[in-house]
Amino acid sequence: MSEEQEQPTGADNNSAKPAIRDALISAAFELFLDRGFERTTVDDIVQRAGVGRRSFFRYFPSKEDVVFPDHEGCLAEMKAYLEKADDEDPVARVCDAARIVMRMYADNPAFAVQRYELTRAVPGLRHHELSVVWRYEHTLAGYLRRHSAGRPDGTLRADVIAASVVAAHNNALRSWLRSGAEGDLTASMDHALEFVRNSSSLRADGDGAGDAQDDVVVLITKRRTPLWRMVREIEATLDED
Amino acid sequence: MSEEQEQPTGADNNSAKPAIRDALISAAFELFLDRGFERTTVDDIVQRAGVGRRSFFRYFPSKEDVVFPDHEGCLAEMKAYLEKADDEDPVARVCDAARIVMRMYADNPAFAVQRYELTRAVPGLRHHELSVVWRYEHTLAGYLRRHSAGRPDGTLRADVIAASVVAAHNNALRSWLRSGAEGDLTASMDHALEFVRNSSSLRADGDGAGDAQDDVVVLITKRRTPLWRMVREIEATLDED
Repeated sequence: MSEEQEQPTGADNNSAKPAIRDALISAAFELFLDRGFERTTVDDIVQRAGVGRRSFFRYFPSKEDVVFPDHEGCLAEMKAYLEKADDEDPVARVCDAARIVMRMYADNPAFAVQRYELTRAVPGLRHHELSVVWRYEHTLAGYLRRHSAGRPDGTLRADVIAASVVAAHNNALRSWLRSGAEGDLTASMDHALEFVRNSSSLRADGDGAGDAQDDVVVLITKRRTPLWRMVREIEATLDED
Repeated sequence: MSEEQEQPTGADNNSAKPAIRDALISAAFELFLDRGFERTTVDDIVQRAGVGRRSFFRYFPSKEDVVFPDHEGCLAEMKAYLEKADDEDPVARVCDAARIVMRMYADNPAFAVQRYELTRAVPGLRHHELSVVWRYEHTLAGYLRRHSAGRPDGTLRADVIAASVVAAHNNALRSWLRSGAEGDLTASMDHALEFVRNSSSLRADGDGAGDAQDDVVVLITKRRTPLWRMVREIEATLDED
């Protein structure tokens, strides 16, 4: 189902993460889970982590950001991945870009589930997460807009595809998180993103490029249509060019 | 293009709006535009409006909410509209529900444009707006999920449709706001929502009614796939139930 030749390298961009940053994240989550997000201050976190207050703000703009420590890096990686795009299939590219986010979660399932519970319980975090999701969607839409500039309904199509990809991604991701990170996230993500790609208005955007041999043929027919008629339709479609 | 038999009544749910509430909104916007959102306090607003501080919080939970005074009513109206749904065409219903939001903006173009400029300039308001948009999307998705319960990909389809409708709605709305409320918002909204409805994966949702003989069979394959393999896939699909 997915045959990406070139995979984004989501997995290992955190390898150089400094120890202080990790200590702050651990301390923050211990405290959030112990006494609640609202009742934990930045001072509490730095005290538990055994570092100075300024260290905290060197790594995180706010208390909310410590809950989503990897999104900035993930967003930067997504942008870099889209910038070096070969443009052959913008919708496929956007789906692969969304997989970068998935891998960030999949790399650390226990943390991801813990954070999911915390985010659901704290409205402030929920709002913060919405702004993070919006930035991903905005990045994907911007890429698609550049690739459909000047076409009829270019921005509309770009915005709808980006929103669909994000919704499908989050549908698969949240099912996995709700299950306690059981099951095959990659497979359900492939399925969800394929669902979006199979939507004709999205494919219609396409890019026009690519090998005709790799074109996708779609036959849509009533179930009661006789098989011979389906075969004739397929043959006619294949002969079209 | 739109053939709603039953129009949501977005236009006049504000007729009973109390004078104090209006005075607070006017005072707040004068101050926000004059000295900026961040530098305006609730005390400044109530002083300018000539009312007590408690009056403010009777109408608005926070300073952010005074910028979006009609969203709560609009959301309530949307929910009521969806609840009395006749379920004939859930996607059409969701598109009409989105039009309730559009009408709230169209009813007061000058205010809508002013707010749009303000929201773009103030990150806190932008975040607040995202949470408002999320509540609309969540409401639409919830309705669609109830109407596709138990079907394959039911929640996925519901989430993708809701996200697509909201993205299309906001694409049309924001173009209009950026233009200073010039142009025919209703026509561009119809066009944007029709674009979403014409997406086959969304239409395929349909309403579930009707004869299994009328089910649609979809075959998607690479052009280079041998015909015999396509035929085998079709047979396998038809045999599935």
